[in-house]
Amino acid sequence: MKKYAIIVAGGSGKRMGMSLPKQFLKLGGTPVLMHTLQAFHMADFDIQLIITLPSEEINFWKELCEWHHNYTPHITVSGGETRFHSVKNALEYVENNALVAIHDGVRPFISEELIINSYEVAREKGSAVTSVKMKDSVRQLEAVKSHNLDRSKLRAIQTPQTFQSNLIKSAYEQDFKEEFTDDASVVEATGHNITLLEGSYKNIKITTPEDMLVAEAFLKAK
Amino acid sequence: MKKYAIIVAGGSGKRMGMSLPKQFLKLGGTPVLMHTLQAFHMADFDIQLIITLPSEEINFWKELCEWHHNYTPHITVSGGETRFHSVKNALEYVENNALVAIHDGVRPFISEELIINSYEVAREKGSAVTSVKMKDSVRQLEAVKSHNLDRSKLRAIQTPQTFQSNLIKSAYEQDFKEEFTDDASVVEATGHNITLLEGSYKNIKITTPEDMLVAEAFLKAK
Repeated sequence: MKKYAIIVAGGSGKRMGMSLPKQFLKLGGTPVLMHTLQAFHMADFDIQLIITLPSEEINFWKELCEWHHNYTPHITVSGGETRFHSVKNALEYVENNALVAIHDGVRPFISEELIINSYEVAREKGSAVTSVKMKDSVRQLEAVKSHNLDRSKLRAIQTPQTFQSNLIKSAYEQDFKEEFTDDASVVEATGHNITLLEGSYKNIKITTPEDMLVAEAFLKAK
Repeated sequence: MKKYAIIVAGGSGKRMGMSLPKQFLKLGGTPVLMHTLQAFHMADFDIQLIITLPSEEINFWKELCEWHHNYTPHITVSGGETRFHSVKNALEYVENNALVAIHDGVRPFISEELIINSYEVAREKGSAVTSVKMKDSVRQLEAVKSHNLDRSKLRAIQTPQTFQSNLIKSAYEQDFKEEFTDDASVVEATGHNITLLEGSYKNIKITTPEDMLVAEAFLKAK
Protein backbone atom coordinates (compact mmCIF):
# COMPACT_ATOMS: atom_id res chain seq x y z
CA MET A 1 0.00 0.00 0.00
CA LYS A 2 1.19 3.48 -0.85
CA LYS A 3 2.31 5.50 2.19
CA TYR A 4 1.75 9.17 2.88
CA ALA A 5 2.71 11.43 5.75
CA ILE A 6 0.92 14.70 6.41
CA ILE A 7 3.13 16.91 8.55
CA VAL A 8 1.04 19.63 10.16
CA ALA A 9 2.87 22.88 10.84
CA GLY A 10 0.42 25.56 11.75
CA GLY A 11 1.84 27.10 14.90
CA SER A 12 2.09 30.86 15.11
CA GLY A 13 4.81 31.00 17.76
CA LYS A 14 2.66 33.01 20.19
CA ARG A 15 2.97 30.39 22.95
CA MET A 16 6.76 30.54 22.66
CA GLY A 17 6.76 34.29 23.28
CA MET A 18 8.65 34.65 20.00
CA SER A 19 7.84 36.09 16.61
CA LEU A 20 9.20 33.14 14.62
CA PRO A 21 6.71 30.22 14.48
CA LYS A 22 8.11 27.30 16.46
CA GLN A 23 8.35 24.98 13.43
CA PHE A 24 11.04 27.30 12.04
CA LEU A 25 13.15 27.61 15.20
CA LYS A 26 16.67 26.33 14.74
CA LEU A 27 17.54 23.03 16.36
CA GLY A 28 21.23 22.23 15.95
CA GLY A 29 21.28 24.86 13.20
CA THR A 30 18.39 23.38 11.19
CA PRO A 31 14.68 24.34 11.41
CA VAL A 32 12.60 22.00 13.57
CA LEU A 33 10.26 21.21 10.66
CA MET A 34 13.16 20.08 8.51
CA HIS A 35 14.21 17.56 11.17
CA THR A 36 10.66 16.19 11.21
CA LEU A 37 10.47 15.95 7.42
CA GLN A 38 13.84 14.17 7.33
CA ALA A 39 12.77 11.67 10.00
CA PHE A 40 9.94 10.41 7.79
CA HIS A 41 12.06 10.45 4.65
CA MET A 42 14.88 8.47 6.30
CA ALA A 43 12.43 5.94 7.80
CA ASP A 44 11.24 5.03 4.28
CA PHE A 45 12.13 6.90 1.07
CA ASP A 46 8.82 5.83 -0.46
CA ILE A 47 6.67 7.86 1.92
CA GLN A 48 4.94 10.68 0.01
CA LEU A 49 5.47 13.77 2.17
CA ILE A 50 2.89 16.56 2.48
CA ILE A 51 3.50 19.61 4.66
CA THR A 52 0.66 21.94 5.66
CA LEU A 53 1.69 25.50 6.45
CA PRO A 54 -0.20 28.81 6.83
CA SER A 55 -0.29 30.24 3.29
CA GLU A 56 1.72 33.32 4.31
CA GLU A 57 4.59 31.07 5.45
CA ILE A 58 4.91 28.87 2.39
CA ASN A 59 7.36 31.13 0.56
CA PHE A 60 9.49 31.53 3.67
CA TRP A 61 9.62 27.74 4.03
CA LYS A 62 10.70 27.38 0.38
CA GLU A 63 13.48 29.90 0.96
CA LEU A 64 14.55 28.03 4.10
CA CYS A 65 14.71 24.80 2.11
CA GLU A 66 16.99 26.43 -0.49
CA TRP A 67 19.15 28.02 2.18
CA HIS A 68 19.60 24.68 3.98
CA HIS A 69 19.95 22.66 0.76
CA ASN A 70 16.96 20.60 1.78
CA TYR A 71 15.99 18.64 -1.32
CA THR A 72 13.79 16.06 0.43
CA PRO A 73 10.88 15.70 -2.01
CA HIS A 74 7.60 16.96 -0.57
CA ILE A 75 4.57 19.00 -1.47
CA THR A 76 3.34 21.99 0.52
CA VAL A 77 -0.35 22.62 1.11
CA SER A 78 -2.03 25.74 2.53
CA GLY A 79 -3.31 25.22 6.03
CA GLY A 80 -6.85 26.12 6.99
CA GLU A 81 -8.43 28.00 9.85
CA THR A 82 -7.87 25.14 12.33
CA ARG A 83 -5.82 21.95 12.43
CA PHE A 84 -8.93 20.09 11.19
CA HIS A 85 -9.12 22.23 8.08
CA SER A 86 -5.39 21.90 7.40
CA VAL A 87 -5.52 18.10 7.54
CA LYS A 88 -8.67 18.10 5.40
CA ASN A 89 -6.87 20.16 2.73
CA ALA A 90 -3.88 17.83 2.79
CA LEU A 91 -6.07 14.71 2.50
CA GLU A 92 -7.12 15.92 -0.98
CA TYR A 93 -3.66 14.83 -2.11
CA VAL A 94 -3.98 11.33 -0.62
CA GLU A 95 -5.20 8.36 -2.73
CA ASN A 96 -7.69 5.75 -1.58
CA ASN A 97 -6.41 2.33 -0.47
CA ALA A 98 -3.29 3.85 0.96
CA LEU A 99 -1.91 4.51 4.46
CA VAL A 100 -1.51 7.99 5.85
CA ALA A 101 0.40 9.11 8.95
CA ILE A 102 -0.58 12.51 10.34
CA HIS A 103 2.19 14.04 12.43
CA ASP A 104 2.94 17.30 14.25
CA GLY A 105 5.66 19.30 12.52
CA VAL A 106 7.07 20.19 15.94
CA ARG A 107 7.73 16.58 16.99
CA PRO A 108 11.16 16.15 15.39
CA PHE A 109 12.30 13.21 17.55
CA ILE A 110 9.95 10.65 16.10
CA SER A 111 11.93 7.43 15.67
CA GLU A 112 12.23 5.37 12.50
CA GLU A 113 10.93 2.34 14.41
CA LEU A 114 7.80 4.15 15.58
CA ILE A 115 7.06 5.46 12.07
CA ILE A 116 7.37 1.99 10.58
CA ASN A 117 5.31 0.34 13.35
CA SER A 118 2.66 2.96 12.95
CA TYR A 119 2.09 2.11 9.26
CA GLU A 120 2.18 -1.63 10.05
CA VAL A 121 -0.46 -1.41 12.78
CA ALA A 122 -2.68 0.88 10.71
CA ARG A 123 -2.46 -1.52 7.78
CA GLU A 124 -3.70 -4.35 10.01
CA LYS A 125 -6.13 -2.58 12.33
CA GLY A 126 -7.26 0.52 10.43
CA SER A 127 -5.57 2.98 12.76
CA ALA A 128 -2.53 3.43 15.00
CA VAL A 129 -2.64 6.31 17.47
CA THR A 130 0.65 6.89 19.29
CA SER A 131 0.29 7.26 23.04
CA VAL A 132 2.29 6.96 26.26
CA LYS A 133 1.46 6.25 29.88
CA MET A 134 1.06 9.32 32.08
CA LYS A 135 4.02 10.17 34.31
CA ASP A 136 2.04 12.54 36.54
CA SER A 137 -1.13 12.12 38.55
CA VAL A 138 -4.04 13.79 36.77
CA ARG A 139 -7.00 15.64 38.24
CA GLN A 140 -10.24 16.49 36.54
CA LEU A 141 -11.74 19.86 37.45
CA GLU A 142 -15.39 20.07 38.44
CA ALA A 143 -17.53 23.14 39.18
CA VAL A 144 -16.06 23.82 42.63
CA LYS A 145 -13.56 21.03 43.25
CA SER A 146 -11.48 18.47 41.41
CA HIS A 147 -10.90 14.74 41.64
CA ASN A 148 -8.08 12.35 41.01
CA LEU A 149 -8.33 10.13 37.92
CA ASP A 150 -7.04 6.55 37.83
CA ARG A 151 -3.70 7.16 36.12
CA SER A 152 -3.34 3.55 34.97
CA LYS A 153 -6.34 4.10 32.67
CA LEU A 154 -5.01 7.30 31.07
CA ARG A 155 -2.80 7.78 28.02
CA ALA A 156 -1.18 10.99 26.77
CA ILE A 157 -1.74 11.19 23.04
CA GLN A 158 1.08 11.93 20.61
CA THR A 159 1.49 11.69 16.88
CA PRO A 160 1.85 10.06 14.38
CA GLN A 161 -1.77 9.04 14.14
CA THR A 162 -1.83 6.71 11.17
CA PHE A 163 -4.89 5.47 9.28
CA GLN A 164 -6.06 3.56 6.26
CA SER A 165 -6.73 6.43 3.90
CA ASN A 166 -10.35 5.48 3.10
CA LEU A 167 -11.19 5.62 6.80
CA ILE A 168 -9.59 8.99 7.50
CA LYS A 169 -10.71 10.62 4.24
CA SER A 170 -14.34 9.71 4.86
CA ALA A 171 -14.07 10.84 8.52
CA TYR A 172 -12.88 14.25 7.34
CA GLU A 173 -16.06 14.65 5.22
CA GLN A 174 -17.83 15.56 8.48
CA ASP A 175 -18.45 19.13 9.53
CA PHE A 176 -15.91 20.50 12.01
CA LYS A 177 -16.73 20.24 15.71
CA GLU A 178 -14.91 21.96 18.60
CA GLU A 179 -14.22 18.62 20.27
CA PHE A 180 -12.02 17.44 17.37
CA THR A 181 -8.68 17.88 19.12
CA ASP A 182 -6.86 15.29 17.05
CA ASP A 183 -7.39 12.92 14.12
CA ALA A 184 -8.41 10.03 16.36
CA SER A 185 -11.36 12.04 17.67
CA VAL A 186 -12.47 12.82 14.09
CA VAL A 187 -12.42 9.10 13.20
CA GLU A 188 -14.21 8.09 16.40
CA ALA A 189 -17.03 10.53 15.68
CA THR A 190 -17.89 8.32 12.67
CA GLY A 191 -18.41 5.35 15.00
CA HIS A 192 -15.05 3.59 14.48
CA ASN A 193 -12.87 2.56 17.40
CA ILE A 194 -9.21 3.47 17.18
CA THR A 195 -6.13 1.39 18.03
CA LEU A 196 -3.47 2.76 20.37
CA LEU A 197 0.23 2.23 19.71
CA GLU A 198 2.94 2.59 22.38
CA GLY A 199 4.91 5.79 21.77
CA SER A 200 8.03 7.25 23.36
CA TYR A 201 8.75 9.96 25.94
CA LYS A 202 11.42 11.24 23.56
CA ASN A 203 8.78 12.11 20.97
CA ILE A 204 8.18 15.55 22.49
CA LYS A 205 6.06 18.32 21.01
CA ILE A 206 7.93 21.62 21.02
CA THR A 207 5.48 24.12 22.47
CA THR A 208 7.29 26.16 25.17
CA PRO A 209 10.74 27.78 25.38
CA GLU A 210 11.87 25.06 27.82
CA ASP A 211 11.07 22.47 25.16
CA MET A 212 13.76 23.98 22.92
CA LEU A 213 16.33 23.39 25.68
CA VAL A 214 15.12 19.81 25.95
CA ALA A 215 15.24 19.41 22.17
CA GLU A 216 18.83 20.67 21.95
CA ALA A 217 19.81 18.20 24.70
CA PHE A 218 18.10 15.29 22.91
CA LEU A 219 19.80 16.25 19.65
CA LYS A 220 23.23 16.30 21.25
CA ALA A 221 22.63 12.87 22.81
CA LYS A 222 21.69 11.34 19.46
CA MET B 1 3.62 29.89 61.30
CA LYS B 2 6.52 27.49 61.38
CA LYS B 3 7.35 25.97 57.99
CA TYR B 4 8.42 22.42 57.22
CA ALA B 5 9.32 20.66 54.00
CA ILE B 6 9.20 16.88 53.69
CA ILE B 7 11.32 15.80 50.74
CA VAL B 8 10.38 12.29 49.70
CA ALA B 9 13.18 10.26 48.16
CA GLY B 10 12.19 6.66 47.87
CA GLY B 11 12.97 5.71 44.28
CA SER B 12 14.88 2.52 43.66
CA GLY B 13 16.26 3.45 40.24
CA LYS B 14 14.64 0.47 38.51
CA ARG B 15 12.73 2.65 36.06
CA MET B 16 15.96 4.38 35.06
CA GLY B 17 17.53 1.03 34.14
CA MET B 18 20.34 1.90 36.54
CA SER B 19 21.52 0.56 39.87
CA LEU B 20 21.89 3.97 41.53
CA PRO B 21 18.55 5.35 42.77
CA LYS B 22 17.63 8.41 40.72
CA GLN B 23 17.73 10.81 43.70
CA PHE B 24 21.50 10.19 43.86
CA LEU B 25 22.29 10.63 40.15
CA LYS B 26 24.67 13.48 39.50
CA LEU B 27 23.27 16.62 37.98
CA GLY B 28 26.03 19.11 37.18
CA GLY B 29 28.26 17.10 39.52
CA THR B 30 25.87 17.20 42.51
CA PRO B 31 23.26 14.56 43.48
CA VAL B 32 19.72 15.42 42.38
CA LEU B 33 18.42 15.25 45.95
CA MET B 34 20.99 17.83 47.09
CA HIS B 35 19.72 20.29 44.47
CA THR B 36 16.19 19.80 45.75
CA LEU B 37 17.19 20.26 49.39
CA GLN B 38 19.11 23.43 48.49
CA ALA B 39 16.13 24.85 46.58
CA PHE B 40 13.99 24.80 49.73
CA HIS B 41 16.79 26.06 51.94
CA MET B 42 17.57 28.97 49.61
CA ALA B 43 13.88 29.91 49.28
CA ASP B 44 13.66 30.45 53.04
CA PHE B 45 16.38 29.53 55.58
CA ASP B 46 13.70 29.03 58.24
CA ILE B 47 12.12 26.01 56.56
CA GLN B 48 12.70 22.89 58.67
CA LEU B 49 13.88 20.25 56.22
CA ILE B 50 13.02 16.56 56.53
CA ILE B 51 14.21 13.98 54.01
CA THR B 52 12.70 10.50 53.84
CA LEU B 53 14.97 7.81 52.43
CA PRO B 54 14.89 3.99 52.41
CA SER B 55 16.71 3.01 55.62
CA GLU B 56 19.46 1.18 53.72
CA GLU B 57 20.31 4.41 51.86
CA ILE B 58 20.57 6.76 54.84
CA ASN B 59 24.25 6.10 55.49
CA PHE B 60 25.09 6.48 51.84
CA TRP B 61 23.28 9.83 51.81
CA LYS B 62 25.21 11.00 54.86
CA GLU B 63 28.47 10.06 53.14
CA LEU B 64 27.37 11.93 50.02
CA CYS B 65 26.66 15.01 52.14
CA GLU B 66 30.16 14.89 53.62
CA TRP B 67 31.77 14.29 50.27
CA HIS B 68 29.94 17.26 48.72
CA HIS B 69 30.36 19.50 51.80
CA ASN B 70 26.60 19.79 52.06
CA TYR B 71 25.92 21.30 55.46
CA THR B 72 22.31 22.35 54.80
CA PRO B 73 20.59 21.51 58.11
CA HIS B 74 18.06 18.71 57.75
CA ILE B 75 16.90 15.56 59.44
CA THR B 76 16.66 12.20 57.75
CA VAL B 77 13.75 9.82 58.37
CA SER B 78 13.41 6.18 57.32
CA GLY B 79 10.92 5.71 54.52
CA GLY B 80 8.17 3.15 54.74
CA GLU B 81 6.79 0.49 52.46
CA THR B 82 5.05 3.03 50.20
CA ARG B 83 5.16 6.80 49.72
CA PHE B 84 2.17 7.05 52.09
CA HIS B 85 4.09 5.36 54.87
CA SER B 86 7.19 7.50 54.28
CA VAL B 87 5.22 10.74 54.53
CA LYS B 88 3.39 9.42 57.61
CA ASN B 89 6.75 8.72 59.30
CA ALA B 90 8.03 12.18 58.45
CA LEU B 91 4.88 13.89 59.74
CA GLU B 92 5.76 12.61 63.23
CA TYR B 93 8.43 15.34 63.23
CA VAL B 94 5.99 18.12 62.25
CA GLU B 95 4.31 20.31 64.90
CA ASN B 96 0.65 21.31 64.90
CA ASN B 97 -0.34 24.83 63.74
CA ALA B 98 2.46 24.85 61.19
CA LEU B 99 2.70 24.62 57.40
CA VAL B 100 4.22 21.63 55.64
CA ALA B 101 5.25 21.28 52.00
CA ILE B 102 5.61 17.73 50.72
CA HIS B 103 7.88 17.53 47.69
CA ASP B 104 9.42 14.87 45.43
CA GLY B 105 13.16 14.57 45.96
CA VAL B 106 13.56 14.14 42.21
CA ARG B 107 12.02 17.53 41.30
CA PRO B 108 15.15 19.68 41.68
CA PHE B 109 13.93 22.61 39.53
CA ILE B 110 11.30 23.86 41.92
CA SER B 111 11.52 27.66 41.94
CA GLU B 112 11.85 29.88 44.98
CA GLU B 113 8.71 31.74 43.91
CA LEU B 114 6.63 28.57 43.72
CA ILE B 115 7.84 27.38 47.14
CA ILE B 116 6.93 30.70 48.75
CA ASN B 117 3.55 30.90 46.99
CA SER B 118 2.79 27.38 48.03
CA TYR B 119 3.16 28.18 51.75
CA GLU B 120 1.18 31.43 51.30
CA VAL B 121 -1.76 29.74 49.62
CA ALA B 122 -1.78 26.86 52.12
CA ARG B 123 -1.75 29.35 55.00
CA GLU B 124 -4.87 31.02 53.56
CA LYS B 125 -6.76 28.09 52.06
CA GLY B 126 -5.55 25.04 53.97
CA SER B 127 -3.81 23.46 50.99
CA ALA B 128 -1.89 24.31 47.82
CA VAL B 129 -1.43 21.53 45.30
CA THR B 130 0.88 22.42 42.43
CA SER B 131 -0.50 21.57 39.00
CA VAL B 132 -0.11 22.51 35.35
CA LYS B 133 -2.35 22.41 32.29
CA MET B 134 -1.95 19.33 30.10
CA LYS B 135 0.11 19.80 26.95
CA ASP B 136 -1.13 16.60 25.32
CA SER B 137 -4.58 15.28 24.53
CA VAL B 138 -5.54 12.58 27.03
CA ARG B 139 -7.56 9.42 26.49
CA GLN B 140 -9.21 7.29 29.10
CA LEU B 141 -9.12 3.54 28.46
CA GLU B 142 -12.32 1.51 28.76
CA ALA B 143 -12.83 -2.24 28.51
CA VAL B 144 -12.48 -2.44 24.72
CA LYS B 145 -12.01 1.13 23.55
CA SER B 146 -10.92 4.54 24.78
CA HIS B 147 -12.31 8.04 24.71
CA ASN B 148 -10.95 11.55 24.54
CA LEU B 149 -11.16 13.64 27.73
CA ASP B 150 -11.78 17.40 27.70
CA ARG B 151 -8.21 18.61 28.12
CA SER B 152 -9.26 22.03 29.39
CA LYS B 153 -10.64 20.32 32.52
CA LEU B 154 -7.49 18.31 33.28
CA ARG B 155 -4.43 19.21 35.33
CA ALA B 156 -1.17 17.29 35.69
CA ILE B 157 -0.26 17.18 39.36
CA GLN B 158 3.20 18.10 40.61
CA THR B 159 4.69 18.85 43.98
CA PRO B 160 5.04 20.67 46.35
CA GLN B 161 1.70 19.85 47.87
CA THR B 162 1.53 22.13 50.88
CA PHE B 163 -0.88 21.93 53.80
CA GLN B 164 -1.72 23.30 57.20
CA SER B 165 -0.10 20.69 59.41
CA ASN B 166 -3.23 19.86 61.45
CA LEU B 167 -5.09 19.02 58.25
CA ILE B 168 -2.41 16.77 56.75
CA LYS B 169 -1.44 15.10 60.05
CA SER B 170 -5.02 14.10 60.78
CA ALA B 171 -5.50 12.91 57.16
CA TYR B 172 -2.50 10.60 57.56
CA GLU B 173 -4.17 8.93 60.57
CA GLN B 174 -6.28 6.99 58.05
CA ASP B 175 -5.43 3.48 56.93
CA PHE B 176 -3.56 3.27 53.65
CA LYS B 177 -5.61 2.78 50.46
CA GLU B 178 -4.29 1.89 47.00
CA GLU B 179 -5.88 5.01 45.50
CA PHE B 180 -3.69 7.33 47.58
CA THR B 181 -1.37 8.39 44.77
CA ASP B 182 -0.43 11.71 46.32
CA ASP B 183 -1.00 13.79 49.45
CA ALA B 184 -3.96 15.63 47.97
CA SER B 185 -5.83 12.35 47.57
CA VAL B 186 -5.14 11.46 51.21
CA VAL B 187 -6.59 14.80 52.37
CA GLU B 188 -9.60 14.53 50.07
CA ALA B 189 -10.49 11.14 51.49
CA THR B 190 -11.20 12.92 54.78
CA GLY B 191 -13.83 15.07 53.04
CA HIS B 192 -11.79 18.25 52.56
CA ASN B 193 -11.51 19.93 49.16
CA ILE B 194 -8.03 20.90 48.06
CA THR B 195 -6.83 24.12 46.40
CA LEU B 196 -4.80 23.97 43.18
CA LEU B 197 -1.83 26.27 42.59
CA GLU B 198 -0.36 26.99 39.13
CA GLY B 199 2.97 25.18 38.74
CA SER B 200 5.67 25.26 36.08
CA TYR B 201 6.67 23.01 33.18
CA LYS B 202 10.25 23.37 34.39
CA ASN B 203 9.40 21.59 37.63
CA ILE B 204 10.06 18.16 36.10
CA LYS B 205 10.15 14.85 37.94
CA ILE B 206 13.23 12.87 37.00
CA THR B 207 11.95 9.37 36.25
CA THR B 208 13.48 8.22 32.96
CA PRO B 209 16.98 8.42 31.43
CA GLU B 210 15.76 11.13 29.00
CA ASP B 211 14.77 13.23 32.01
CA MET B 212 18.44 13.40 33.06
CA LEU B 213 19.30 14.89 29.66
CA VAL B 214 16.52 17.43 30.13
CA ALA B 215 17.71 18.18 33.66
CA GLU B 216 21.28 18.81 32.53
CA ALA B 217 19.98 21.18 29.85
CA PHE B 218 17.81 23.08 32.36
CA LEU B 219 20.74 23.34 34.75
CA LYS B 220 23.01 24.79 32.06
CA ALA B 221 20.35 27.37 31.13
CA LYS B 222 20.02 28.55 34.74
